[in-house]
Amino acid sequence: MKKLTAISAAFAIATATAQAAPATTNQGATMESSSSLQAVAPALQQYADQRLMGEVWNRPGLSPRDRSVVTLAALIARNQTAEMQQHVSLALDNGVKPGEISEIITHLAFYGGWGNAVDAANITQQVFQARGISAAQLPQAGDKLLPLNEEVEAARATQVAANFGAVSPGVVQYTGEVLFRDLWLRPGLAPRDRSLVTVSALIANGQVAQITYHLNRAMDNGLTQAQASEMLTQLAFYSGWPSVFSAMPVIKEVFEKRPGNQS
Amino acid sequence: MKKLTAISAAFAIATATAQAAPATTNQGATMESSSSLQAVAPALQQYADQRLMGEVWNRPGLSPRDRSVVTLAALIARNQTAEMQQHVSLALDNGVKPGEISEIITHLAFYGGWGNAVDAANITQQVFQARGISAAQLPQAGDKLLPLNEEVEAARATQVAANFGAVSPGVVQYTGEVLFRDLWLRPGLAPRDRSLVTVSALIANGQVAQITYHLNRAMDNGLTQAQASEMLTQLAFYSGWPSVFSAMPVIKEVFEKRPGNQS
Amino acid sequence: MKKLTAISAAFAIATATAQAAPATTNQGATMESSSSLQAVAPALQQYADQRLMGEVWNRPGLSPRDRSVVTLAALIARNQTAEMQQHVSLALDNGVKPGEISEIITHLAFYGGWGNAVDAANITQQVFQARGISAAQLPQAGDKLLPLNEEVEAARATQVAANFGAVSPGVVQYTGEVLFRDLWLRPGLAPRDRSLVTVSALIANGQVAQITYHLNRAMDNGLTQAQASEMLTQLAFYSGWPSVFSAMPVIKEVFEKRPGNQS
Repeated sequence: MKKLTAISAAFAIATATAQAAPATTNQGATMESSSSLQAVAPALQQYADQRLMGEVWNRPGLSPRDRSVVTLAALIARNQTAEMQQHVSLALDNGVKPGEISEIITHLAFYGGWGNAVDAANITQQVFQARGISAAQLPQAGDKLLPLNEEVEAARATQVAANFGAVSPGVVQYTGEVLFRDLWLRPGLAPRDRSLVTVSALIANGQVAQITYHLNRAMDNGLTQAQASEMLTQLAFYSGWPSVFSAMPVIKEVFEKRPGNQS
Repeated sequence: MKKLTAISAAFAIATATAQAAPATTNQGATMESSSSLQAVAPALQQYADQRLMGEVWNRPGLSPRDRSVVTLAALIARNQTAEMQQHVSLALDNGVKPGEISEIITHLAFYGGWGNAVDAANITQQVFQARGISAAQLPQAGDKLLPLNEEVEAARATQVAANFGAVSPGVVQYTGEVLFRDLWLRPGLAPRDRSLVTVSALIANGQVAQITYHLNRAMDNGLTQAQASEMLTQLAFYSGWPSVFSAMPVIKEVFEKRPGNQS
Repeated sequence: MKKLTAISAAFAIATATAQAAPATTNQGATMESSSSLQAVAPALQQYADQRLMGEVWNRPGLSPRDRSVVTLAALIARNQTAEMQQHVSLALDNGVKPGEISEIITHLAFYGGWGNAVDAANITQQVFQARGISAAQLPQAGDKLLPLNEEVEAARATQVAANFGAVSPGVVQYTGEVLFRDLWLRPGLAPRDRSLVTVSALIANGQVAQITYHLNRAMDNGLTQAQASEMLTQLAFYSGWPSVFSAMPVIKEVFEKRPGNQS
């Protein structure tokens, strides 16, 4: 009962603030507050107020909107539900559209685990209802897909089939049919944002082996190195230092090998 | 309250369907439905209906019963509780015996983390009570063990002691006494199924380094390559694409090195 | 409702026992009991009573107090909340101070993920309230820090900046400012205990790449090899065998390369 009440209270604060004023990161200080944090770990509450909400969310290099995308991806990928309701609200305040949150959840069903997406949908539904966000504002299942770069996709498919066609034809088939020829082409979330979500989820879950491909894809899709760098700062706080330090050697290598890199 | 109600509703649907008819995968379409998924992520709901329940669960190569074993293992290993009650029900509908579910939970306490098993037991108890499954149908603590292949176990123990006897005598001791001379020999779950559960949990949790030993053991215990291949298709949907792509290089190597492999 | 009731019941047992007598590991047998475990997985209940609580918690090499530190770290790092309330109570019974639990939660916000710390704070707050533990007993945000070994920190900072300064200046900055020049110096938890918490979290979360640095740091901070060895036995049960077996090759190498190692 205590926990449900705490969440409800936090949610009440979040929605109240959201209605009162345009989103600013000063609201953030409120977002990460909770009575239990203050009661049990006052030092952590101060880190939250002064460092995380007071500094990190305001850093240049990555917009508050993108920081919300990264944070939601990390929370959903690791199924960290404690603050998810607050962060769905903050994401909306920071300019992430309801339809984009819908697509982030759908995307992470495939890149973070189906059950995580269901938890995220349950929590998001409450935020949407409280804000009067209706189904009409959300992308539909049959939306017209973005155009496919057939050449790039053919190259990807050929390589995966060569590597794993004999290991799991089913995985190879659905990777093409469902992921790269369908999910990634859904228009409700830009390819660059899908990539940002994917890389954030890989780092949060320690799936280091998949980072090289997806970070390159992210940068092909328009993510800058400065943004990727700040994505790491954001993730250090939300998915933990070890996940970021395990990823940094691979990310360093991607940065260094990108065409046009001067060093 | 919302979440509890949603789970109860899903459970009501699941049990109602289960009583009405023998298990078919058409029920599956109902299983993965939820009001929040439809409200928040209609595209994901369509993937669930058309692809996951409409296709994947019906693919040849792995029976619905085995797909339920793989799915439960993945959910318990990652502590994805949102759909666990539905999937315990579906597993029973698909022919997994109550005693086998009990043993899967016990097995995963050791291979996925003790706390995960406790969560799974809490959820499973509700399904068992609703279906009138009594303690008498479950394996007991003192059940007579399956015979041990002393030669194989001696080889395993010798190698582990040589590698890690100086690192952690306690781990080495309990690996023999509790796992391989007790848990793995409990008669309520066939060794082949214990292996299927173990490998699924390793992939779901990204424990790639342990896959080679346990996939070989699984295939020694009777898991076919075609079944292992379809296990990967099932896991791609339930534990996420990255976990499967991180595992596939190791699995490919196991397949290629198995005695009798033609290639 | 069922789950909340089960947790409340377990908590009632735990607090009742705690008031009745000084902490002994015989209480442990009660701690790991739950009606659902007995009802669904009686074999697991027997492993809990006879092996985990009856033997492991009593093994020499690591005190019950340190075993509680390791166990809490593993549960929080993996967000395994099912038994967390019981284990916070057991930790207090085993001599972990309230202020140390507060600092463990704060530490793991950075080493296990912020959302995990929030869940842990919510649960711990209930235990603290039930036991009348007040905020005055907890470390404050502005506590005077322990002295810093400037030479060691300068060497660490130089190496991290050389490796990753171009990858993520933000991560490099906060690693120094917030972690090693602040968090690690907070006086409410001894450096050796922070290291024990950190290494336990890394193993529990499969962050193998970070173990070498932090296990060496732990042993520099006073953790003995015998204690590290028994930490592994404890973690095998609480975070699962695969996490420990993935870590053991790295831990073996650290042990062998430590100055003064005879072998």
